[in-house]
Amino acid sequence: MICSLAKPLIVTMGDPGGIGPEIVVKSWTQLRGSGPVFAVIAQPGQLSGTMGLNSDDIAVIDDAGKALTCFHHKIPVIALPEDLDKATAVMVSIKQAVKLCLDGQARGLVTAPISKKFLYDAGFKHPGHTEFLGELTQDTPMEMSRGPVMMLYGGGMRVALVTVHMPLHKVRPAITKQLVMHHASVLNDSLRCDFGINMPRIAMAGLNPHAGESGSLGREEIEYINPAAEQLRAGGVQITDAQPADTLFHAEARREYDAVLAMYHDQGLIPVKTLDFHGGVNITLGLPIIRTSPDHGTACNIAGQGVARADSMIAAIRTARQLADNRIHNHCE
Amino acid sequence: MICSLAKPLIVTMGDPGGIGPEIVVKSWTQLRGSGPVFAVIAQPGQLSGTMGLNSDDIAVIDDAGKALTCFHHKIPVIALPEDLDKATAVMVSIKQAVKLCLDGQARGLVTAPISKKFLYDAGFKHPGHTEFLGELTQDTPMEMSRGPVMMLYGGGMRVALVTVHMPLHKVRPAITKQLVMHHASVLNDSLRCDFGINMPRIAMAGLNPHAGESGSLGREEIEYINPAAEQLRAGGVQITDAQPADTLFHAEARREYDAVLAMYHDQGLIPVKTLDFHGGVNITLGLPIIRTSPDHGTACNIAGQGVARADSMIAAIRTARQLADNRIHNHCE
Repeated sequence: MICSLAKPLIVTMGDPGGIGPEIVVKSWTQLRGSGPVFAVIAQPGQLSGTMGLNSDDIAVIDDAGKALTCFHHKIPVIALPEDLDKATAVMVSIKQAVKLCLDGQARGLVTAPISKKFLYDAGFKHPGHTEFLGELTQDTPMEMSRGPVMMLYGGGMRVALVTVHMPLHKVRPAITKQLVMHHASVLNDSLRCDFGINMPRIAMAGLNPHAGESGSLGREEIEYINPAAEQLRAGGVQITDAQPADTLFHAEARREYDAVLAMYHDQGLIPVKTLDFHGGVNITLGLPIIRTSPDHGTACNIAGQGVARADSMIAAIRTARQLADNRIHNHCE
Repeated sequence: MICSLAKPLIVTMGDPGGIGPEIVVKSWTQLRGSGPVFAVIAQPGQLSGTMGLNSDDIAVIDDAGKALTCFHHKIPVIALPEDLDKATAVMVSIKQAVKLCLDGQARGLVTAPISKKFLYDAGFKHPGHTEFLGELTQDTPMEMSRGPVMMLYGGGMRVALVTVHMPLHKVRPAITKQLVMHHASVLNDSLRCDFGINMPRIAMAGLNPHAGESGSLGREEIEYINPAAEQLRAGGVQITDAQPADTLFHAEARREYDAVLAMYHDQGLIPVKTLDFHGGVNITLGLPIIRTSPDHGTACNIAGQGVARADSMIAAIRTARQLADNRIHNHCE
């Protein structure tokens, strides 16, 4: 499979009313000389005009592999029909991008942000990209533990989440020993295969303040989380019992682990975005394809003004290439 | 009341089995030359021997004011009877310290950490210091909005909490419009009086991921938090609607406010302790007395080894003096 090193990444533009088109074009402008090479799946009309791009700057290609020859001069676009409505075009672009990865024509997928509310109105039924990608790839066999599991990667930290996009009051009923064990296994496999860490060390966050303080501030640590950790350790995974989340993310603490398994969205995302607001990357672990995205939303309020920063998108593209290389190198495909 | 500038602070030693005695002695060693001056309420026998302190280094005083004359040479101690059991001594020390502040003999209180489990066994009925201090001072009139409200102060950030020490699943039922308004008012008054900020700007965190994302990830922002913000603004408080907590704490975001009102423990403490693990200070807002403490626990696992860092305790002592000076200067006593 070494030939896949010569394949492009696939980029989806996300919500056309957000900053997606702008950060995709900015990423191409910055990366056209050095790579990683990518092809964009889009309606060319949505891209033309963005950041001064004209139709001469766009190379419509029918085969992802052709991106390799034109990327330096033109932004390679796999064209979707212009007559699709916007929401349908977003969903179709994601499906086609996944197919290109599964078919071996692309080395990984990088997605610009979508507005879930916008897609819900068009019949989208998933909480987000992550779950949609899980469904699209569920029939493809894989050796690693299957996710999807969301990781935030930034500021030198890798933080995976047991629960993601749900109201806070739904977190506790969602936390089970089985779920914690599953997500820890996906994280452990990904640290080995995608990050190339031979003996990964995982720190587990508690659900409650002070990790429950021996049960006086909540019993989920005692009943679900620590038993999961114990069983994982018996199976060879290096993972701690539940740790107080507020003392888990400072510089000294970070030296003790390769990744944190956090119990819910804000617990995991606050430290990463506090330390690295612009360069964080969202990674979907446990898929048969590599998938990354920027860690911000559509930012519709600043779209079209040319002011959106592409740091996170560029970091996502570079990370996707690195993960894809590692996965091949570690024979985990 | 300018004379209170010449009063000492009062320090309690907290759990004698924790690092409290050690960090109190280290703080005195570091501050004896420069101040702020403090007196310790303790059983002298608990202090003697700590960090090489012998009985010649201890000045047992019967009046807090005498601390001012001996602090440079000896650690001033207001003695508790040696025959009190340890847990009772901890509770009595806090009560006496509060009384000295209320009686005008001390300018503020700095408490070393207690082990709640240890005190529960002796009949302590409060979730922590903060609530105990609220009860001890509830009959003293004050002009500012009355708390107690917990603030973490570190890394240049001030973060106050609407809920504190409770299991995560109890947070949502605890959040009401009334509670949010009350805690925001206490925070606003404290920013003006204790921190000397004339027109404080408060950023409010949402409860749910993405601050509920217009209701699709939870409705508490729509039903309780934003209506509280609206009513507060109508009353002249500069406070935002609920903001996504994960994007509220990075360097650029922090320039936009003087303090954050967070909805629960880990949401507020994770960013402060991630950025400033050693120097964070816990401040109780909305009391008729000034009260600070270090933002760490008893750390019994390293007690007695001489390795505990006193950074947070020293920061707590310095902060208490600053807050006391501000409160007098701003005529908010």
